[in-house]
Amino acid sequence: MSLAVSLLLVALCAGAGYGEEGTQAQKAGHVSVVVVGGTGDLARKYLWQGFFQLYVSQVSGGNTFSFYGGGLSPSEQATPVLFEILKAVTCSKDVSQDRCAILKDQFLRLSQYRQLKTLEDYQELARHIEQQLQQEGMTEAGRLFYLSVPAFAYAGVAEKINSSCRPADGTWLRVVLEKPFGHDYLSAQVLATELMGALKDEEMYRIDHYLGKQVVSKILPFRMENRKFLDPIWNRHHIERIEIILKETLDVKGRISFYDEYGVIRDVLQNHLTEVMTLLTMKLPANVSNSGEVLRNKREVLGSMLPLGKNQAVVGQYQNYKTEVQQELNKTKEYVSLTSTFAAVLAHIEDAQYEGVPVLLVSGKMLDESVGYARVLFKNDVFCLQSHNNVHCKPKQIVFHFGHGSLKYPAVLVSKNLFKPVLKGGEWKEVTEHKDVDVLGLHISDYFVQTPTTEREAYSELIHHIFAGQKNNFVSTENLLASWEVWTPLLSALRASFPRIYPGGADNGDMLDVHLRGKEIRFNSEAVIISPDQAGGPSASSFQVMQGKFRGAEMVSAWSEELVERLAADMQEAAEAAVREGGIFHLALSGGSTPLALFRRLVLHHFSFPWRDTHVWMVDERCVPLTEADSNFHSMHKHLLQHVRIPYYNIHPMPVQLNQRLCVEEDGGAQLYEKEINKLVNVSSFHFVLLGVGYDGHTASLFPGGKLNEAGGSLVALTESPIKPHQRMSLTFSAINRARTVALLVMGKGKHELVTQLSRVKDNLEKYPVTWVKPDNGRLVWYIDYDALLG
Amino acid sequence: MSLAVSLLLVALCAGAGYGEEGTQAQKAGHVSVVVVGGTGDLARKYLWQGFFQLYVSQVSGGNTFSFYGGGLSPSEQATPVLFEILKAVTCSKDVSQDRCAILKDQFLRLSQYRQLKTLEDYQELARHIEQQLQQEGMTEAGRLFYLSVPAFAYAGVAEKINSSCRPADGTWLRVVLEKPFGHDYLSAQVLATELMGALKDEEMYRIDHYLGKQVVSKILPFRMENRKFLDPIWNRHHIERIEIILKETLDVKGRISFYDEYGVIRDVLQNHLTEVMTLLTMKLPANVSNSGEVLRNKREVLGSMLPLGKNQAVVGQYQNYKTEVQQELNKTKEYVSLTSTFAAVLAHIEDAQYEGVPVLLVSGKMLDESVGYARVLFKNDVFCLQSHNNVHCKPKQIVFHFGHGSLKYPAVLVSKNLFKPVLKGGEWKEVTEHKDVDVLGLHISDYFVQTPTTEREAYSELIHHIFAGQKNNFVSTENLLASWEVWTPLLSALRASFPRIYPGGADNGDMLDVHLRGKEIRFNSEAVIISPDQAGGPSASSFQVMQGKFRGAEMVSAWSEELVERLAADMQEAAEAAVREGGIFHLALSGGSTPLALFRRLVLHHFSFPWRDTHVWMVDERCVPLTEADSNFHSMHKHLLQHVRIPYYNIHPMPVQLNQRLCVEEDGGAQLYEKEINKLVNVSSFHFVLLGVGYDGHTASLFPGGKLNEAGGSLVALTESPIKPHQRMSLTFSAINRARTVALLVMGKGKHELVTQLSRVKDNLEKYPVTWVKPDNGRLVWYIDYDALLG
Repeated sequence: MSLAVSLLLVALCAGAGYGEEGTQAQKAGHVSVVVVGGTGDLARKYLWQGFFQLYVSQVSGGNTFSFYGGGLSPSEQATPVLFEILKAVTCSKDVSQDRCAILKDQFLRLSQYRQLKTLEDYQELARHIEQQLQQEGMTEAGRLFYLSVPAFAYAGVAEKINSSCRPADGTWLRVVLEKPFGHDYLSAQVLATELMGALKDEEMYRIDHYLGKQVVSKILPFRMENRKFLDPIWNRHHIERIEIILKETLDVKGRISFYDEYGVIRDVLQNHLTEVMTLLTMKLPANVSNSGEVLRNKREVLGSMLPLGKNQAVVGQYQNYKTEVQQELNKTKEYVSLTSTFAAVLAHIEDAQYEGVPVLLVSGKMLDESVGYARVLFKNDVFCLQSHNNVHCKPKQIVFHFGHGSLKYPAVLVSKNLFKPVLKGGEWKEVTEHKDVDVLGLHISDYFVQTPTTEREAYSELIHHIFAGQKNNFVSTENLLASWEVWTPLLSALRASFPRIYPGGADNGDMLDVHLRGKEIRFNSEAVIISPDQAGGPSASSFQVMQGKFRGAEMVSAWSEELVERLAADMQEAAEAAVREGGIFHLALSGGSTPLALFRRLVLHHFSFPWRDTHVWMVDERCVPLTEADSNFHSMHKHLLQHVRIPYYNIHPMPVQLNQRLCVEEDGGAQLYEKEINKLVNVSSFHFVLLGVGYDGHTASLFPGGKLNEAGGSLVALTESPIKPHQRMSLTFSAINRARTVALLVMGKGKHELVTQLSRVKDNLEKYPVTWVKPDNGRLVWYIDYDALLG
Repeated sequence: MSLAVSLLLVALCAGAGYGEEGTQAQKAGHVSVVVVGGTGDLARKYLWQGFFQLYVSQVSGGNTFSFYGGGLSPSEQATPVLFEILKAVTCSKDVSQDRCAILKDQFLRLSQYRQLKTLEDYQELARHIEQQLQQEGMTEAGRLFYLSVPAFAYAGVAEKINSSCRPADGTWLRVVLEKPFGHDYLSAQVLATELMGALKDEEMYRIDHYLGKQVVSKILPFRMENRKFLDPIWNRHHIERIEIILKETLDVKGRISFYDEYGVIRDVLQNHLTEVMTLLTMKLPANVSNSGEVLRNKREVLGSMLPLGKNQAVVGQYQNYKTEVQQELNKTKEYVSLTSTFAAVLAHIEDAQYEGVPVLLVSGKMLDESVGYARVLFKNDVFCLQSHNNVHCKPKQIVFHFGHGSLKYPAVLVSKNLFKPVLKGGEWKEVTEHKDVDVLGLHISDYFVQTPTTEREAYSELIHHIFAGQKNNFVSTENLLASWEVWTPLLSALRASFPRIYPGGADNGDMLDVHLRGKEIRFNSEAVIISPDQAGGPSASSFQVMQGKFRGAEMVSAWSEELVERLAADMQEAAEAAVREGGIFHLALSGGSTPLALFRRLVLHHFSFPWRDTHVWMVDERCVPLTEADSNFHSMHKHLLQHVRIPYYNIHPMPVQLNQRLCVEEDGGAQLYEKEINKLVNVSSFHFVLLGVGYDGHTASLFPGGKLNEAGGSLVALTESPIKPHQRMSLTFSAINRARTVALLVMGKGKHELVTQLSRVKDNLEKYPVTWVKPDNGRLVWYIDYDALLG
């Protein structure tokens, strides 16, 4: 077998340029390709075909190749299997039959099977490669290991490669990995750490084959080439929403043992759809081939996403899945799997460009059709005076159509009332003759349509990239972990959710349609009954609120969600009354985690809250800079202030930092705040003070045993907390008890014991400071959730 | 003629309740109704019919009536004319022919014509009324004057009523006025002042007959009755846009002498469409009949509107209008009128509830159909997995259909995928049998449809309201002026604009379709040619920018708009570079009016500006509290900071107020700011400093003759301005010249002389402080507009 023979062959294939990043730096020489798991399904279907195409495209270049299929089976047994696979590879249409025969023959002669089981097997492979190099007198360019094996085997194989198959310095080593890369953040991190023990980051190529799809890899170039048109409209002011959809008609029969561990979110959304989302929304890199910049910009998108929780997803499971699980996993008839085979997730990217634009990620098995696309739908910004069927009033959208569906072929479609996209180079062409077909609500003739001149297989594309050492279409460790960071909380939140059962195929009807409600998503139709309340949104009657007395004061109690709704409504009512009366509302808010749900409620539901006339004061603050995460103000800013339209002047953080030091008595921060209150707040009486209570009975930053009466009549004081950071600034009881309304919010089972105690004890400043909250002329209302009240 | 006879008649008409505000306080007794201009067009068509219906509805109440038609003609001449009009009034269907005959006869007997020309005529009328009262021995309840005369006559008639027709104390006087109420803010104010000299505000009833249309007056009750459904969706998060449209097919032939002075904006948009807009967007009153609250809430909407300028409107004129003007106003063939007969205006209400929701107001003569409606279109928040024709994926909208159009009858329509509206009382009914008709893109069967049980004429409705003393459906002086305040700047801006000429009727095609571009509106199609640039939005090549040198430094010059675009783009580039490099961008901004256009540009076009990582510093500040309008910070807050997503901590106002006093040397404000700069800004070198230059050559707050070197090396100093407020705080040249980039923005013809001088003089700190801007290691770029450069 002559390794040099390939050099004799003439160029058969031009080979599209695969960027400059890697290729220029690479020295020419011999390349060894090792497909570990070389007789497996993936290798059979895609990998060998991809490597053959690589070979064809590189045959006239300066490199020579050998190919190894590796596996656990002994050589005698697997060699014929591998050669059956290799014989099935095909040439592209532009290669003549004769040439193809020569190329295939050549490829076969360069390939062999090797058992790769033990460390010795790998050592022997390395020796074999080196011997061949020596015999032929060739320089080595690099070694490419493609791990087409189950994920649990990665670490072991990587370790063996590391310890025995590393080439000499200056020769590259590339190890290709297939998902799954863990099943949550922690496991992904563990796997990453294991791999990092054996391989350098730049040696690892994590494949997401979606990134090899021609239309997906066109997203960034399309955005750059059409910048002139897109720059003005690619933002929250113009985009109505983004949909990234992968619908499949197949079930997962035969793959249950794998699938049931993962489900659709891990299988499709966390990787494929997330990658597409980042490509659509990332900041454009200066250079699309600069993988550092591309990956960094992608990661920024992940970092800007609003957290995904239970309310950001709906999930389903096709009806027969249950039976398939029982059969394939040998379970009884009672066994129920909660794995979802359908998911629709609503993501939001919280930056100035995309804030408020819904990004919908949907995928499922056993749906009515097989199609994958990303659609950017623009707002309807034309008003047609005469006819609503006017072309200008039709939907404006850009569709990245990955394949299948009504259109059948991969394409980028731009509706004609948007712009005519640029066509650069020869790799894409415009389609002008159409079948009579609709694509996402528009007739095909309403679009400008572009399609690749030659269809290429995703794996083949990516194999070319790997060979070129170009990493921008692969998943870096950092980006992988960033993605798991986004998805893991959702997966945890859904762990105990029952997926909606759907029949499968066209029978699904509108069962899986979803409704976006602000930042939340629901199924559009109720599975069983639509109650009148649910149909019309929340109404007063849906509150299940109990009113009573607690420690002689008013008490409102409900499940936490209703309680927060009620408190927010009461707060808005107080605000409106104060603004009606005097044009201004003075609100003092506590720190801590309890008010966060309230802030969220105010931000997402109380659009008419009179923020413009509201002054926000602090009940207490920790003596840390305001910009630090454990500052009360920081938390209030993050969860409330930055989301509402409140004037800068109406915000009153406590001056804990003066003269570049924190809470020093002589700097007079407390007195300064008191002066500000005296100046702005009528008779220093806040309209509304929101307090919480700690496990130890403290409220504001007024702690048990804290000599709380020493402050005399002053409104603001420096205090000491038993827990870190010890130093605090706090309103005093003098300030609190002057308020018109004081709300005391108590939530969670953890507070039950305290609530029980408080219901019994007398006022006791030393032991239970909260008992000292007794407004002179105002109201005190306890808001206690059922968990805290009833345990 | 017996005035008491009406008391004998039995109740023929229940009479819908017209609120409680006025009626309860009103004493029963005799009412004199005087229609000044009682034989004119409006009186003939609507008013007498309205008063007859009032009579019918009140005939069984405690009141008696007499009706006077007044005018300039002598009695002998006009009396038969009036009686012809009166004989033509009709009863509603539910009144039998016999009863109707009795009622009409009665009404005729209670009515008479009087010449009302001179003061004596009015005095005689008053005497007549008093005599009759005495003869019949009746108490007087009130006097109602309806001024159906040209606006120029209002003040005179009002004065005559005031001086001679005032009833005794405790008896009401109501004077009804018809638009036009002025043709701009100033003339409306003059007219209002004149009227206020004669009449009290509560005596005036300014009619906008749109407020009497049944569907328009249903808007508020509809919003209140359906609060449960609307509260969650009646906001910017759910409303896509609001359209308020009045299309007419008629021309204005025969009315040119009036119309040409006014045009469509004054005729329809300033009043009718504005009223509808306020009804749709105002805060709901606690009591819909409380006119004080209703009017105040309406006024708040007007106060929250973004200013309307040239870019918020497009105007048209139908083709034949020119000839009609030439004929009716006796003009030559060369005469061109710029009066618009079509206008589309894009309004925005800048509050938390509606921010960003486009409100489109459109009206025109000679359009393809006659229809009036207000449509609230909601965002498409459902994703239909299987079919895009699913009912849930159809448009979600509420249409207040005033009349005509495809539907023919007045109705409120709610698309079925929204909710089923409440039906209260007997005045409205649900329509369930439909003709096969589409309304605004949906088939009629896709809506819940409500219509009034009995159709009533707007004037008749309003006459009932006037009689009931209920003012919520009239235009108060304050609200009138608030509306003119909104519309006058637009009217001025359009004064010299050529309207687009349209053929009229269906031939208009898509000529008048409009395109909303962010906060601006354009015609969707270019009238003549579409240049490639215009089709695709602004592009780099559309800048017409000149680059050169000024005082040895770089200079960029262009027309003001392009100059600002360029400066904004350069600023963003600097910001991105700084953030890439060090994660942070320190920007120092000047006060004054020059940067406002820049702020606007940044807010409306630079969505990806890295505000999150930008720190904003002040170049200079006036020694006034930050909350006052002439504070530089206040202006920057209003025009820039409150519109972008910048963290609270990144905003650095100058501490001009310390210890409750302003800019006192001993308080060390300048030193404090310097410390903050030293602490946060790397080597105290701002990335970008934006400066302006005053007519006297000052920059920042560094004025000629100001001993500018005394500050030594300090970065911040207190300075003195020759103009008020004299005290300032300013960055020093030490701070400015440490910056990486300094931009000096100079705009307007007024600066031309200075620019000329500066181009010649040497550096001169004493006389031209701006010449001292010489960055040590940074760049200085002059941005000078053509007006300032070329004069």
